[in-house]
Amino acid sequence: MTDQTTSPLGSSSSEASTEGSTPASRANTIPTYGRFPLLDGIRSPLDLRNLSTAQLQQLADELREETIDTVSTTGGHLGASLGVVELTVALHAVFDTPDDRLIWDVGHQAYPHKILTDRRERMRTLRQPHGLSGFTRRSESVFDPFGAAHSSTSISAGLGMAVANHIIHTEKPEHQERNVIAVIGDGSISAGMAYEGMNNAAVAGPGAKKLIVILNDNEMSISRPVGSMSAYLSNLISSRQYRNLREFAGRMVKHLPSALEKKAKRAEEYARGILTGGTLFEELGFYYVGPIDGHNMEQLVPVLRNLRDADDIGPVLLHIITEKGHGYHPAEQSGDKYHAVSKFDIATGKQAKSPPGPPSYTSVFSNELNRIAAIEKNIVAITAAMPSGTGLDNFAKAYPDRFFDVGIAEQHAVTFAAGMATEGLRPFCAIYSTFLQRAYDQVIHDVVLQGLPVRFAIDRAGLVGADGATHAGAFDVAYLGILPGMTIMAPSDEVELVHMTATACYFDEGPIAFRYPRGAGLGLPLPTSGEILPIGKGRIIQELGQQHGSEKGGIALLSLGTRLHEVKKAAALLAEKGYPPTVVDARFAKPLDTHLIEQLARNHKVLVTIEEGSIGGFGSFVMQHLAMKGLLDKIRFRPMTLPDIFIDHNTQYAQYEEAGLNAQHITSTALSALQG
Amino acid sequence: MTDQTTSPLGSSSSEASTEGSTPASRANTIPTYGRFPLLDGIRSPLDLRNLSTAQLQQLADELREETIDTVSTTGGHLGASLGVVELTVALHAVFDTPDDRLIWDVGHQAYPHKILTDRRERMRTLRQPHGLSGFTRRSESVFDPFGAAHSSTSISAGLGMAVANHIIHTEKPEHQERNVIAVIGDGSISAGMAYEGMNNAAVAGPGAKKLIVILNDNEMSISRPVGSMSAYLSNLISSRQYRNLREFAGRMVKHLPSALEKKAKRAEEYARGILTGGTLFEELGFYYVGPIDGHNMEQLVPVLRNLRDADDIGPVLLHIITEKGHGYHPAEQSGDKYHAVSKFDIATGKQAKSPPGPPSYTSVFSNELNRIAAIEKNIVAITAAMPSGTGLDNFAKAYPDRFFDVGIAEQHAVTFAAGMATEGLRPFCAIYSTFLQRAYDQVIHDVVLQGLPVRFAIDRAGLVGADGATHAGAFDVAYLGILPGMTIMAPSDEVELVHMTATACYFDEGPIAFRYPRGAGLGLPLPTSGEILPIGKGRIIQELGQQHGSEKGGIALLSLGTRLHEVKKAAALLAEKGYPPTVVDARFAKPLDTHLIEQLARNHKVLVTIEEGSIGGFGSFVMQHLAMKGLLDKIRFRPMTLPDIFIDHNTQYAQYEEAGLNAQHITSTALSALQG
Repeated sequence: MTDQTTSPLGSSSSEASTEGSTPASRANTIPTYGRFPLLDGIRSPLDLRNLSTAQLQQLADELREETIDTVSTTGGHLGASLGVVELTVALHAVFDTPDDRLIWDVGHQAYPHKILTDRRERMRTLRQPHGLSGFTRRSESVFDPFGAAHSSTSISAGLGMAVANHIIHTEKPEHQERNVIAVIGDGSISAGMAYEGMNNAAVAGPGAKKLIVILNDNEMSISRPVGSMSAYLSNLISSRQYRNLREFAGRMVKHLPSALEKKAKRAEEYARGILTGGTLFEELGFYYVGPIDGHNMEQLVPVLRNLRDADDIGPVLLHIITEKGHGYHPAEQSGDKYHAVSKFDIATGKQAKSPPGPPSYTSVFSNELNRIAAIEKNIVAITAAMPSGTGLDNFAKAYPDRFFDVGIAEQHAVTFAAGMATEGLRPFCAIYSTFLQRAYDQVIHDVVLQGLPVRFAIDRAGLVGADGATHAGAFDVAYLGILPGMTIMAPSDEVELVHMTATACYFDEGPIAFRYPRGAGLGLPLPTSGEILPIGKGRIIQELGQQHGSEKGGIALLSLGTRLHEVKKAAALLAEKGYPPTVVDARFAKPLDTHLIEQLARNHKVLVTIEEGSIGGFGSFVMQHLAMKGLLDKIRFRPMTLPDIFIDHNTQYAQYEEAGLNAQHITSTALSALQG
Repeated sequence: MTDQTTSPLGSSSSEASTEGSTPASRANTIPTYGRFPLLDGIRSPLDLRNLSTAQLQQLADELREETIDTVSTTGGHLGASLGVVELTVALHAVFDTPDDRLIWDVGHQAYPHKILTDRRERMRTLRQPHGLSGFTRRSESVFDPFGAAHSSTSISAGLGMAVANHIIHTEKPEHQERNVIAVIGDGSISAGMAYEGMNNAAVAGPGAKKLIVILNDNEMSISRPVGSMSAYLSNLISSRQYRNLREFAGRMVKHLPSALEKKAKRAEEYARGILTGGTLFEELGFYYVGPIDGHNMEQLVPVLRNLRDADDIGPVLLHIITEKGHGYHPAEQSGDKYHAVSKFDIATGKQAKSPPGPPSYTSVFSNELNRIAAIEKNIVAITAAMPSGTGLDNFAKAYPDRFFDVGIAEQHAVTFAAGMATEGLRPFCAIYSTFLQRAYDQVIHDVVLQGLPVRFAIDRAGLVGADGATHAGAFDVAYLGILPGMTIMAPSDEVELVHMTATACYFDEGPIAFRYPRGAGLGLPLPTSGEILPIGKGRIIQELGQQHGSEKGGIALLSLGTRLHEVKKAAALLAEKGYPPTVVDARFAKPLDTHLIEQLARNHKVLVTIEEGSIGGFGSFVMQHLAMKGLLDKIRFRPMTLPDIFIDHNTQYAQYEEAGLNAQHITSTALSALQG
């Protein structure tokens, strides 16, 4: 045994610490250069293709260290990336990327891939303002043929590429068909979308021959005896020899009468299934290979070569076993395998703690839900693979029998909740705004159309910081607010969130949603229990605008959600300038507080709505109402929303600055309307 | 052999034609009463539970005739309903409905179910204005525990019910746990959502024990030897005797060491799989039974009884084989098995032809696409199980290698199209507005965020008539229009649709959608080829409003989509009253023709937008733009949209009347704004 405890790097990494002759310019920005004799020589994946398997293993070790170094300074999805270091090296060594298409499902495991594909020098900018994305992205590199961030898209996208190449090849024979490799995790494959992709790949005919799906299975521990026998069999199965045997058998059975042929074929498949465990995928129509050890280059490289050279067996599912956080002891030993980490100390693995501050909106929701659930036994809670992100992990601990983690399956989550609501339970469906998009039809068709009282706790509303546009919760007020009979709340601070959690619980008349942002609240003292708010009623924060300005008053600021804090700052700025405004917290995007809104329109010259959501949302609903009442004719209305662009990862504050939704933007919008 | 050719009813139906002593009131409305001695005696499913299997078979025969009679006068989904007549009878006879929950996936096969559950007398109102819905509906009957119309929701909803009952039972032991039966077709089970449901049912523990999924497999013809051996085995497998045997084996292997246990269990499963073919479902964690003949009461009833009485084996998948259109020769012999029919003549099966009229929007799109595809070899077309509904059946005939029917898998369809777009193909993804909701996240995350040029041909936009609210295309302009970088067109007539099909084809800069309604166009002469329209530009129909009214002119009507016809009528009415308006066809919901819209706002006193879509759509985008430009302050703006309610099935004209979007509504809205 090597003395692994002295180093946090658990794999047999080469500890070469000789300073290489790296260019000074690089040495300045990337202090680790020189520790990595092989990695330093890699300018593009082309350089991998002449290395021996032993060298590839060494390169993987270096790449692992470099990945850890990088993420220790940036934070990010470390565990998943460490699990695929060897796979990344092997894929780029065996396949002809970028002409062969390599798709990383979700894309958060693609850090080693980014390092190998011309982005090593920019890795310290990962998830930083104007830096590299934490996911794959077409605009970032030709080695990223498909952008990702939401799970389970890779098989469908990959099949599209494979089929497209086949069509182009058929039309223009000089166009060579490309291998398409989709790497998908065992969690992601639980989504219906992945199943739809496999279901279609299996019947896509010659177009799907070049599709290789790699199931990256990290639920099973690597310590389990994946075994040499299994690896041997997998290698055997993917080798030409075994395939020839199989083809021969195939030709044999073709001459048997049909019924008998089926039986024979089935018997052969089952026999192989018993040995290899892949019958499920075989039944779905894939050529199954595996499982093999995804950290063993000696297994990976020959199997991938066999699959690359086999033109006639696809679509293929290669099942590899990996360990999340592999090769870095602190990660291997942590419960979540360092799935997503802050900056950390490499030697100890200790993550930088965020400075102590107010509790997050997530935890405020979580605590209030747990409090009520102790009283109301018919509360159930549902998450789609996000128990900790949604704060439902606390609920799971307290009420395991009433908690449901359905995996990455948002569609099922919503309709499952609808089914429970029909029986009189009170389901809380906690899904991030961006992921609820996956279940839009289920929200419409199964919940809203039937008026079922499902409670949607929508976290990550608005802009979300380092995760960027793919994870922004920009659209939910718009896409939910257009649905007849929907009720939508947005708390302006964490106290309001306590009230809204309670309000949602006791609202049995139909579907209700409440949306709240990523991050910490304002640090307000929290009530011991939430109040039930009157449905569709806003609250007046200050009523000053109607005293000022022209004949019918000055400015009214009507805020939905946590922009209220900036709205209050804007109100102070406006007061300084002599135009103290009326300020209202709308609380509800739907139903509108029509009485209050009409009063605001009648008594002010300017009405500004402010929300952390896209066009077509709260501001539009207010406009629509006032327009059809004729009240819009007499007021200067300014709906402030997120702009009609995708906003890149950055700090949340900077994102709102770019969006034009901070205090000074509100102030100047209101003033120019008043004076315009 | 019976003389089946003399009667269109193919099954061994009792031809009893004696007039029973039916109440006169009924005899008047339902002339077939008296032909059905058993059916006439059924007041509720309770009455079925004392009948012998032979009587149940006779009842099924009568029910089949009654179903045919009904649909011959109303039109509707006949084929699917005829396929489940025996199953419907058997389920209500064996299970304790409505306390046991019976969910029909999609719900279009539920006509026999409706007849048996207190709705026989209203069946002649099926799909008629104010009549019964063509799908299941909670508000219609306690025997409809879950509303449906979109496919593949039944397993998730059923699991929710089963789990809820288990939770309630745990809390209150006097609450009896109920069987939950979800009947799902082999097409519907291809949707990812069904897979997510099965995936979760399998691991749901005791809560899922009472869930029985019935796979209604009508892809296989009934003429195929489903076979007595298979039926025997299925019956055997579901019987207590076999289960006892199996449990004994199960207890046995529990005492073996773990690895060996797995092998043994697997061997047993495969052995059974080889005999019964259910290994796929077994691997997903279901107790598989089948396949059995779904038209044979002697097989159905005992198997269902066994499953009902087995508390400890669930979740169960019962695989039954049925024939769409079974028992009615014209249906059995038609290609589509009378999937959805108009009114028809029972003796001949001849469907009432709709009066000859202009071609449908669907066919206009279809023809233009085919024309261009002959020139542009990189056009591919994708449908999700709707080749004929979308008109892509023509494309499939002409270009089979470039056509993809992915089955009920809208999520996959969109991302598959995105993958093809990355390779330089020009994908047309033809999906109904209401079904595109299933792929909302894929549209956002895989297409729009990456700016990929996928063409969305969105049929059934706006209100759709007899299919009702579940199939209305109300929301697409809103939910797509809020996405940055999206382009959305809506033709005002069929000529425009020709142009927009061509425009979409040659637009390679990003995602583009065009939406068009169900039904026929105006009968305009069609151009031989479409013109490429300038992106984001509207067209002025008449420019009269600015000459009239007060200092800055009169009325402008800004129309998006096929409401233009009503807008023109409204313009004529307004002209009669002395206020001839400006009329503009917006063509684009996004990007807006900002120059034109600003001109309209500057030169008119009143601006009315008209669209066949929900709030938050085109009108909101126009308002938002004008508001932020300060131009909304000086105009009377009226956004006319679909109202914020779900509109029930009716004629399309009556639906728009209810929506307030016909000529007289437009006229009065414009006038009252002008004079207000």
